[in-house]
Amino acid sequence: MPDNITLTEGGVTSPKGFMAAATAAGIKYQDRTDMAMIFSQVPCHVAGTFTTNVVKAAPVKWDQHIVYDIGKAQVVICNSGIANACTGQEGMDICERTAGAAAGILGIDPSHVLVASTGVIGMQIPIDKIAAGTKEMSKALDGSVEAGTSAAMAIMTTDTRKKEVCASFMLDGRTVTIGGMCKGSGMIHPNMCTMLSFLTTDACISRPLLQEALSTVVKDTYNMVSVDGDTSTNDTVLLLANGKAGNTEISEKGRDYEIFLKALYMVNEALAKKIAGDGEGATALFEVKIVGASTHEQAVTLAKSVVSSSLTKAAIYGHDANWGRILCAMGYSGASFDPEKVDLWFSSENGEIKIIENGVSTGYDEKEATRILTAEAVTAVADIKEGRETATAWGCDLTYDYVKINADYRS
Amino acid sequence: MPDNITLTEGGVTSPKGFMAAATAAGIKYQDRTDMAMIFSQVPCHVAGTFTTNVVKAAPVKWDQHIVYDIGKAQVVICNSGIANACTGQEGMDICERTAGAAAGILGIDPSHVLVASTGVIGMQIPIDKIAAGTKEMSKALDGSVEAGTSAAMAIMTTDTRKKEVCASFMLDGRTVTIGGMCKGSGMIHPNMCTMLSFLTTDACISRPLLQEALSTVVKDTYNMVSVDGDTSTNDTVLLLANGKAGNTEISEKGRDYEIFLKALYMVNEALAKKIAGDGEGATALFEVKIVGASTHEQAVTLAKSVVSSSLTKAAIYGHDANWGRILCAMGYSGASFDPEKVDLWFSSENGEIKIIENGVSTGYDEKEATRILTAEAVTAVADIKEGRETATAWGCDLTYDYVKINADYRS
Repeated sequence: MPDNITLTEGGVTSPKGFMAAATAAGIKYQDRTDMAMIFSQVPCHVAGTFTTNVVKAAPVKWDQHIVYDIGKAQVVICNSGIANACTGQEGMDICERTAGAAAGILGIDPSHVLVASTGVIGMQIPIDKIAAGTKEMSKALDGSVEAGTSAAMAIMTTDTRKKEVCASFMLDGRTVTIGGMCKGSGMIHPNMCTMLSFLTTDACISRPLLQEALSTVVKDTYNMVSVDGDTSTNDTVLLLANGKAGNTEISEKGRDYEIFLKALYMVNEALAKKIAGDGEGATALFEVKIVGASTHEQAVTLAKSVVSSSLTKAAIYGHDANWGRILCAMGYSGASFDPEKVDLWFSSENGEIKIIENGVSTGYDEKEATRILTAEAVTAVADIKEGRETATAWGCDLTYDYVKINADYRS
Repeated sequence: MPDNITLTEGGVTSPKGFMAAATAAGIKYQDRTDMAMIFSQVPCHVAGTFTTNVVKAAPVKWDQHIVYDIGKAQVVICNSGIANACTGQEGMDICERTAGAAAGILGIDPSHVLVASTGVIGMQIPIDKIAAGTKEMSKALDGSVEAGTSAAMAIMTTDTRKKEVCASFMLDGRTVTIGGMCKGSGMIHPNMCTMLSFLTTDACISRPLLQEALSTVVKDTYNMVSVDGDTSTNDTVLLLANGKAGNTEISEKGRDYEIFLKALYMVNEALAKKIAGDGEGATALFEVKIVGASTHEQAVTLAKSVVSSSLTKAAIYGHDANWGRILCAMGYSGASFDPEKVDLWFSSENGEIKIIENGVSTGYDEKEATRILTAEAVTAVADIKEGRETATAWGCDLTYDYVKINADYRS
């Protein structure tokens, strides 16, 4: 690993001074947890990125005010089941009353309370249940890894797996840790941010650099994931830094900032791949790499177009090396390239095979290609032979279960 | 009907002087027809629109030369099963040899032979089979409605229904007819054109106005259809006008041009809706109307975003009035609007129901909404209350069968 950054088990409670809790508040789901809380012993610098959808959920508007205008936060409260989107003034009131309830019990400033919601759009959250859940979690906060895991499980909707990761590295002889948890399975096509992702760190870093690091990393991680092309109303990434690691504050760009940025990238890349691989109904993680591009932007456009193509995704489900659909999706992406120069490979843990060279079939063995595509993670690499820029996007296959989940998600 | 334009049964052989044929050439499919020919007794003015995909099939390149540089054509030869896309120089040679074979037998200029293909990308078409099929069809040409229908059936791939329509109207006391046939079911997200659509007319009209009329109409018909967001490599619309109706040539804009344009719109709107309703695996035609827009472009962007949303399409399959997904898809479309001003209705032959008013739920009856959505054609109308512009887009629901068809289309 470069700079001794290690990805390990763990999550939002792994950095020093962070605690978490979860509860079954009965907001919409029954017989499972549906609220999570992440708390820092001291106020944190906070950075965030949010959905670019014109339709923004109430908690997105609430958090934007805190991130853009206040810059400090101490707690995140999240519920699953109801998204609190398209809920008018009543939806904003829910945010304010949730923050008030938490601040009262925890003895903190209500303007340091971030909120987040995920679930059905258009329903109102029952305020009594969310207030009771907030109260309960405030008393149950715990700094153990298990508490972080229970929080990661409470925010799941159609997710089938909890998503957590943690990275540690040394700065000034001090151990610095970044932890993260996220959820996301459907309505996944983040733009400038993603579904819900909560990141904590004990690094000591100035707020402007914290935001710059987050914005940089989000572009090449969550923004390169697509499950179904639908950009949510609630996409939110929050990063809280409490300074408890005791390193000298990172207040300008240099080696320390680069190490922090690299670790933050690794945490978010891991979380982004977990979202893609757990896309609604997915049986495979589908990774698309474009190499040999003239510009990074061109590579991004091509990679995202392929990973979002319904026909390509259905072919991946069928373990079918239907490369024409990949070239077709590159062709309608809006990026220019010469189709007659493209080479394409498929690879997985089962091996690697070259499918096309200079835009036409290599006469590859279909059975061998299918064997390679029959893996839980498959990669397509296209070389467009123009330059040295690259990009990677992540998605999943399109399956019967995606349709099943979404034809009756509300009921 | 305005201007006495009548939509009737019929197709490409309905206008005077056009004949058609079909044959089972065994190119890829067995036990069914897979080649079609449309022939005019005299050379025609020709107009066309083609895929904007950077990856263009060989027949698209061939036809673009004829439409842009020559402007005249007398026959269209189309095969299903193999798309002749990503086939390099060999693919272009196939077009040339097909045209040569037809020209020889029919005694016409080879540069007046249009070709089109649809099917799997990347395979080569066996030249002996396509040449034999061309020869056979040249001898079997017939001006009957049945011959037109057999041509419309031969070009189907995953289509479940043949798609034909015909419009007649009076100009100068002469009956003028426009006939059309098309195919298209998957890889449908046309941009400036569509899947294969062949239009014939006996109208006498100048070539520049013929092209202008076609380009105008395509924008609001085929380009407003999406089945799966994938813009094909082969999209082609061809319009042949042989002048046999005997009307005074339409050589400038005026009442005659307007009537012709209106009839051409009606024919293409009917064909576009047939493509959307027969989308791969579809159980319902899904129509989205945006009203109250400031500009037509804004309305188009919003309507296409909703009709292309996988989550909305899955909800339509589930007869679920999941309006949050519609508002969400409008929100990420890239068009600006105020979500808190939006009214939304669902309607079908079963009735009409107002779902949201000023961005929030009307508290409508879910059972009644589901009853309305349980129809073979359902419409969502969103009023954004900004101005007087409108747009309509057509798509279909997303079903298990879409996945089934595309997970093993090649095998």
